[in-house]
Order: sequence, then C-alpha cells, then structure tokens
Amino acid sequence: MTAVAAGLQSSDGFWSALSKLVNERHIVRDPEALLAFCKDETPFLPPGHACAAVFAQSTEQVSAIVRLCAEHGVGITPRGAGTGKSGGAVPVSNSLVLSLQPMNRILHIDTQNLSAHVEAGVVLGDLQNAVAARGLYYPPDPASFRWCTIGGNVAENASGPSSVKYGCTRDYVLGLKCVLASGDIVWCGKHTTKGVTGYDLTSLICGSEGTLALVTEVLLRLLPRPAARATSLMGFASAKQAIDATCALLGGGILPVCIELMDQGTLKALVRSGMSPPFKLDPIAAALLVECDGDTDAAVHEVMVRLASVAERAGACEVLVAQSEAERRAFWSLRHSLSEATRRLAKHKVSEDIVVPRAQLAEMVAYLKSLGERHGLQTCAFGHVGDGNVHAQVLFDDASDQPRVEALLDELFRKTVELGGTLTGEHGVGLAKMPYLALEQSNELLLLQQRLKAAFDPKGTLNPGKFLPS
Amino acid sequence: MTAVAAGLQSSDGFWSALSKLVNERHIVRDPEALLAFCKDETPFLPPGHACAAVFAQSTEQVSAIVRLCAEHGVGITPRGAGTGKSGGAVPVSNSLVLSLQPMNRILHIDTQNLSAHVEAGVVLGDLQNAVAARGLYYPPDPASFRWCTIGGNVAENASGPSSVKYGCTRDYVLGLKCVLASGDIVWCGKHTTKGVTGYDLTSLICGSEGTLALVTEVLLRLLPRPAARATSLMGFASAKQAIDATCALLGGGILPVCIELMDQGTLKALVRSGMSPPFKLDPIAAALLVECDGDTDAAVHEVMVRLASVAERAGACEVLVAQSEAERRAFWSLRHSLSEATRRLAKHKVSEDIVVPRAQLAEMVAYLKSLGERHGLQTCAFGHVGDGNVHAQVLFDDASDQPRVEALLDELFRKTVELGGTLTGEHGVGLAKMPYLALEQSNELLLLQQRLKAAFDPKGTLNPGKFLPS
Repeated sequence: MTAVAAGLQSSDGFWSALSKLVNERHIVRDPEALLAFCKDETPFLPPGHACAAVFAQSTEQVSAIVRLCAEHGVGITPRGAGTGKSGGAVPVSNSLVLSLQPMNRILHIDTQNLSAHVEAGVVLGDLQNAVAARGLYYPPDPASFRWCTIGGNVAENASGPSSVKYGCTRDYVLGLKCVLASGDIVWCGKHTTKGVTGYDLTSLICGSEGTLALVTEVLLRLLPRPAARATSLMGFASAKQAIDATCALLGGGILPVCIELMDQGTLKALVRSGMSPPFKLDPIAAALLVECDGDTDAAVHEVMVRLASVAERAGACEVLVAQSEAERRAFWSLRHSLSEATRRLAKHKVSEDIVVPRAQLAEMVAYLKSLGERHGLQTCAFGHVGDGNVHAQVLFDDASDQPRVEALLDELFRKTVELGGTLTGEHGVGLAKMPYLALEQSNELLLLQQRLKAAFDPKGTLNPGKFLPS
Repeated sequence: MTAVAAGLQSSDGFWSALSKLVNERHIVRDPEALLAFCKDETPFLPPGHACAAVFAQSTEQVSAIVRLCAEHGVGITPRGAGTGKSGGAVPVSNSLVLSLQPMNRILHIDTQNLSAHVEAGVVLGDLQNAVAARGLYYPPDPASFRWCTIGGNVAENASGPSSVKYGCTRDYVLGLKCVLASGDIVWCGKHTTKGVTGYDLTSLICGSEGTLALVTEVLLRLLPRPAARATSLMGFASAKQAIDATCALLGGGILPVCIELMDQGTLKALVRSGMSPPFKLDPIAAALLVECDGDTDAAVHEVMVRLASVAERAGACEVLVAQSEAERRAFWSLRHSLSEATRRLAKHKVSEDIVVPRAQLAEMVAYLKSLGERHGLQTCAFGHVGDGNVHAQVLFDDASDQPRVEALLDELFRKTVELGGTLTGEHGVGLAKMPYLALEQSNELLLLQQRLKAAFDPKGTLNPGKFLPS
C-alpha cells in the first residue's frame, strides 16, 4: 500500500478537490488532533498514520470523496466511535479517515413493520432507548453500547451477552445503503424480514470491517420487547463446574438470553476493587450470571426455578435469583465491572476474545491457566460462555514482559483453533489478529477472500491493509 | 453458455475420464431417465437439458468431478430432491446434473454444543426427527420437509411458517464444506455460534443457488426444543382485517412462531375440496392460523389469551384455540391442504412467492384481487403474512390464457417492488424469476454480483445460466 501514500504526496490536486467537497471545518489535518483518529481501544497497538480525517455529512458526499480518493490512489478508513478492539478503524498507509459520527439521525422507527432505519453514526444506546420507548427491542449489546455506533457494529458484526438467544448484529440487518469503491451508491438487502433475491451482500458486508463497501445507512429488524425477565447469579467451586453447568443449562430445553462466566481470578479482582459478590469466595471459585426472558412474570419465574435446579444438579453451591430490579442491577454491575477490575490487577492488560465449542471450553480455560503458570504471567477469564466465547485476560506489570505475553498468545490461539474454535467472537480481526488468521483459515479460503475483496475493491482503496494478508 | 455444451460435444475424453471417477451405476445417460433430473416443481417451466446425471458419493469425488468438468468446459448443476419452485436445480446448456441425494448421512448430533453435522443429501424431515428425539429443535420448515434436502435448503435459503420467530436456513448454518469451482475443498464458517474471522462466506453461499460453490456437508446450529405451544385459528370478515390484525399481533409485545393467512378464495377452495373450516364462511372471509411457543404450558396459554384479545380488538369475528393436539392438527391440516385445494380450482395454477413490508400487505392482496378482475383470471392468496410473505395464486383452465397470466404477473411483480417488497421470499430466483430481477435490483448491484460470481467461478462452471443475467 506504499503506492497509496506515495500517490497522495505527489498530488496537490487532491487537497484542493477535497476542499471543494468538504467544508474546511469538517477536515482535520493538524497532526496532534489527527492522532485521536489514528487509534482505537486495542491494547498495545501503535497508532496508525492518516493524511487527514473528514467528518462525513451525507451519503452523496461520501460517494464524492470515495471517487476522489480512488482517482488519487488514496485509501479510506471508515470510523465510528473508535471503540473497536482489533484496530479495524486504525488507518494505515496514510489513508484518509472518514468519520461517520456526524451522520447520526434515526431516520424512522416503523412500529408496523418492526424496523428502524438509521444513519451509520447513530450510537447503539440511543437506538436501544428510542426503540424501547416504542415497546420494541434491538438485542445486540456490546459493552461499549453507550458510545459505539451502528456503522461500527455492522463493520465488526458486534454482539454481547444476549447473543446466546438473540444472535449478533448481522441477524438484525435487513438492508444497507453503501458506497462502493467506485463511488456508486447501492442499496442492498430488503425492507422485509424474508427475501431471497440475489446474493446476500448484506450479510457479507456485515463483519467485513469496511473493506468491501462504506455503509452509510442501515435498516434494522426489531423485535417486540420481552415483557418479563429473571436474573440469577450462580456460584460454583470451579470454573470447570460452571462451564459444565453451562452445557447442562443449554441442554435442559430452555434458551437463556445469556450465560456469563466469572472465574476465580476475576471474582478476586472484583473484591480487590471494592465490589462484594453476594457469596463467600471460599468455596465459590467461579460464578455464572444467567438471564432469561419471556412473555409473563410467572413464566420466567418458573423457567428460572427450572434453570436453578439444573444448575444445582450440575454442582452449583449457591443459586441466587434477583428479587427486584435493584438486585438485578447489582448482579449486572458485577459483570460490568469485570473489565475495569481486572485492569487494576496489573499495570498492563491484554484481553483476547476467543471462542471454542462449549464442550471444549473447560479445557480451554484450564489451558489458559496452565499457560499463565508456564510463562509466569497472571491470567484470568470471563465472558460469554453460553456461546463458548471468553475474554482471556493476561496481566503483567513490566512492559518488557511483552515478548512472553506474545509467546503465550501464540500458544493460546493455536490451542483455540486445535479445539475447533475461532480467533475472535466479536472483536474482529482488524490489524491485531491479522498475523494469526492463517492459523484458522486455509490458504484456499484466504485466496478466495482476496479474489472477493478484489471484486468489490479492485484498487484496494477501502480500509487498506486490513485483515486479509496480501 | 453455448461454449460449455460445444466444448463437451467435441470431447470424448470427458466421458472416459468420468467413468474412471464414477461407477457406471451412478451415471444416468438414458434420455428418458434423464428427464427426471431436468425439472423441478416450478409450474410451466420447460424441462432443461443435461448431458448426464451423476449420483455423488463423497466430497472427494465431487471435487474430482468439478475439476474434470472445469477442464472440459462442462457446467455442473447440483440437485437435491428437486422440490424447488424456481428452477434452481434445472440444468441448462447441457450441463451435468450432480445429485447429492446419496450423501444422506447425519454425521453427528452434538447435544453439548447444540449442533448437527450432516451431508447435503439429508432429508430435512429426517433431520427434524433425529434432533427431536434428542430434545432439540431445528426450526426451518418449508412445506416440502418430507422430501427436500438440507443441501437444497442451503442453496435456496429455505424457510416456512416458523420464520416469523425463528428465521431462515441461513440463520442456522454455522459452517459448510464446499467444493469450489477449482475443485478445491474448503471448510468455511465456524464450529461455534459466534465468530467474526474473515468474510462471512457461509452466509453468502447460503441462498446462492449452487452458483458459487457446491455444498457437500453442513454444520447446523440447533436450539433447545420448546416445551409448550398453543395454536389458534382466527376468523375475520376480510383479508384486510386479518392483515391489520397481523400487524396488531406483532405490535403487542409477543413474537408468535407463525402467522398464516387464508383469504376468502382459499377458504372456499378448502370447502370445495371437502375440508370443513370450524366456522361459517359467512361472515368470515379470511382466517389467520397463529401459533406461539414457550417454556411452559401455563405461559403459552396466557400468551394465547393475550393474542386472542388483541385479535378481537382488531376485529376478529371468532377466535378458536386448539384444546388438544388433535385439534391443533386439524387447524394445521387446513393450512397444509391449501396448496392442493387451490390447485383443484382450475386446470392450471401459478403460485407466486412475493413479499412486501407487512404494513403494505393489505394493499398488495387487494391489488392482486383487482388484477385478477381486470385480466379475467381467478386469484387468491395465502401464506406467511407474519413475514409479509404471501403465495399469490392465479388459476385458469385454458393454457391459451398464459399470455394474460404473464401480463398479470408482470404487473404483480412491479407492484411488489413499488411497495418496497421483494420478488421471492423463500422459493428463489432460479430461472423463473430471472427476467424480473432487474425490477428489484439496480444495475450497479447486478454488476457487483457478476463480479462476485466471477471471483468464485471464473469459468462459469457452477450451475450455469442461473439467476444473474449475463
């Protein structure tokens, strides 16, 4: 991609043409201000390099910018709130960062057809609140919901705890307004929940990390808002027991909304940061947060009673069921504090988003622990065990430990793939996991994806340098 | 695609090489026997032309056949049970039909990870029964479930009534073993419910009608089997009222499994064919079959009471709730008889699978009626109104009426698109709807899909002549 940067430096015409398309107020060129557009929330990822950042105002403007960039060989890196954890929005090769944040209008919430038409820069939490006010529900719930944008969610196929029952962003995207690499504006997808005309470009563009098309508007499917829910905190003597119980819970005829694990290390981190789990940490060495929802209070109560008895048969030492909304919030605040509480355990933290089939998860978590012991690094794990998805935490105080951390991660990723798993459940490959992609995907599959990328973006203008090795 | 056929006729080497790859017992060349492999269940679609049909025995064999065909410029049309309704499995240009039916093993049902690993030729109903025996549930339910194969379901992204709550085949496909146009065998997808490494080729290949890759094995996600369900038959004075009630039912905070419409014409057809709906056809001129499921009998009962009261407020004249499994079956047997009962109304029947946003559906159904009156043709409609998906029936006795039928369909499809709808909800484009695709999809979108097809299949060997105009 050096050609892109070189092409730009020799071309003054680019800047004068850009000034005609974009109000000067919406262009960031100052190197210091630009730095904020050159990183996301990926730990230890060095900032990228951008020639400028532009605040996009409309699809037509994006189209004109894409045409201009294609003409001058300038790459474009789309950006939402920059909450990504794999470097998907980090520019490389001096590309132009295109912020979709100003395009933040909820265009229409259709209570008849249960859909929401939004611009890419809408903040997820704002959408959740707007649809909830109409008795509707948009399930995807990444932890960054207060800041992350729908466009970023689409780019990374974001999800969170609720995906056990409700799936990921892709499952809710009916259609997309996109700008192609040529600058052409296309609508792909449907205005209906069903439809099988043509290739499913909508699903393909979801999770493509901005490398196939720039998404400017999204039509999302909504659901009726479940009327009732029940929440339980279950304590176990070991992570293995908690994970075995997860399989038992899912085999018991009920589909919970989520099953979240906190292992011993994360529970201790909670205590150290001043939180008090409502049970004693001896003998309890792991906990599950389980939530289910339904149409009536009586039904979810009965379901939770059944889940509790499955958990007890699977070895739970303690099963607490929230008796009030305040108690439910208290359970969830433990879960929501894990990321910050584990961060405080050491100066540096790496959090790796891996997935293995649920039945292999106990082995994976035990392997993480043994890896930590072998490499002399503190580790712990929490996350979405209902989907086999854990965030493996590696903690260390001395930056010079980083080579050991990398050695640990290399082994961790190899084991993940060996157990039939995948390198990322929800954070994406971006830049951070590019070096590992070939561990999981065959050469034939990578070549096929390169041909597919070239079919969409022959000049490689869209989010250059991202996730496919060239 | 004439080059394909021409290439073949000049090449005797093809046949001797094929004989080395495939046991002669598994090759059909006799023109009369071959005819069965040259059609599916699409009305009025003339049979296609195949050079031979082969019964595939293994992925490795399929790979070898694909390589051979690529070498000799012979197209390959994959085929399951031939129950398709758009000609997707109908060969054109003298291609080789590849039947996946012999590859019908359920390789593994994983009760821990809730997944099923099957060969492409497994019959859907066999899979449904096998997973039900283990307390699990595979939701997609096209009407042809007793015969259709999982491979065909994947090719067409099949679905049925339950898609209101449970979605389509694509929503359950975790991974695919595929043979690419090069003959390379790739695994795409995940063994886990979550995972975001690389482009989502799995979703893309679903619904691609065998034009991007030949699917030989499928890993499917399963769900816990819902413990309870309730079924209701609701009578209305008009189709409009029934459709308005559908929107009200979905806006009431509950997501039913399905909402199926029978309009006046279809109810009359039932009576004519000797079935007795359990209500008087005057004043009732439309009915909805509504089913919901859940974790307990008490819960689904309470939900159905709430749905019934929503329906009554929306104008239902009569709401019957099945009080026994026998009564539930009686309600469903009305629904299952509609296709056959309407077929008996005239010598010829065309059934068109269209979708519009639910809020536009009443207008669509009224338009169908007015179209019939204007063209002097009998029409009626039934189907999956919970998804805005109806099967529009056009009936006529005289084959010479076909030009009028075609004129009607042309107007019907234009209106469908005008109302924000899509030309096919579950049957696919195949050959039947190819001429109409450009009504719905822009030129830019069609060109993009052609480039995508070329990236997967540069020589155009896989299911040639299907759904994209060249």
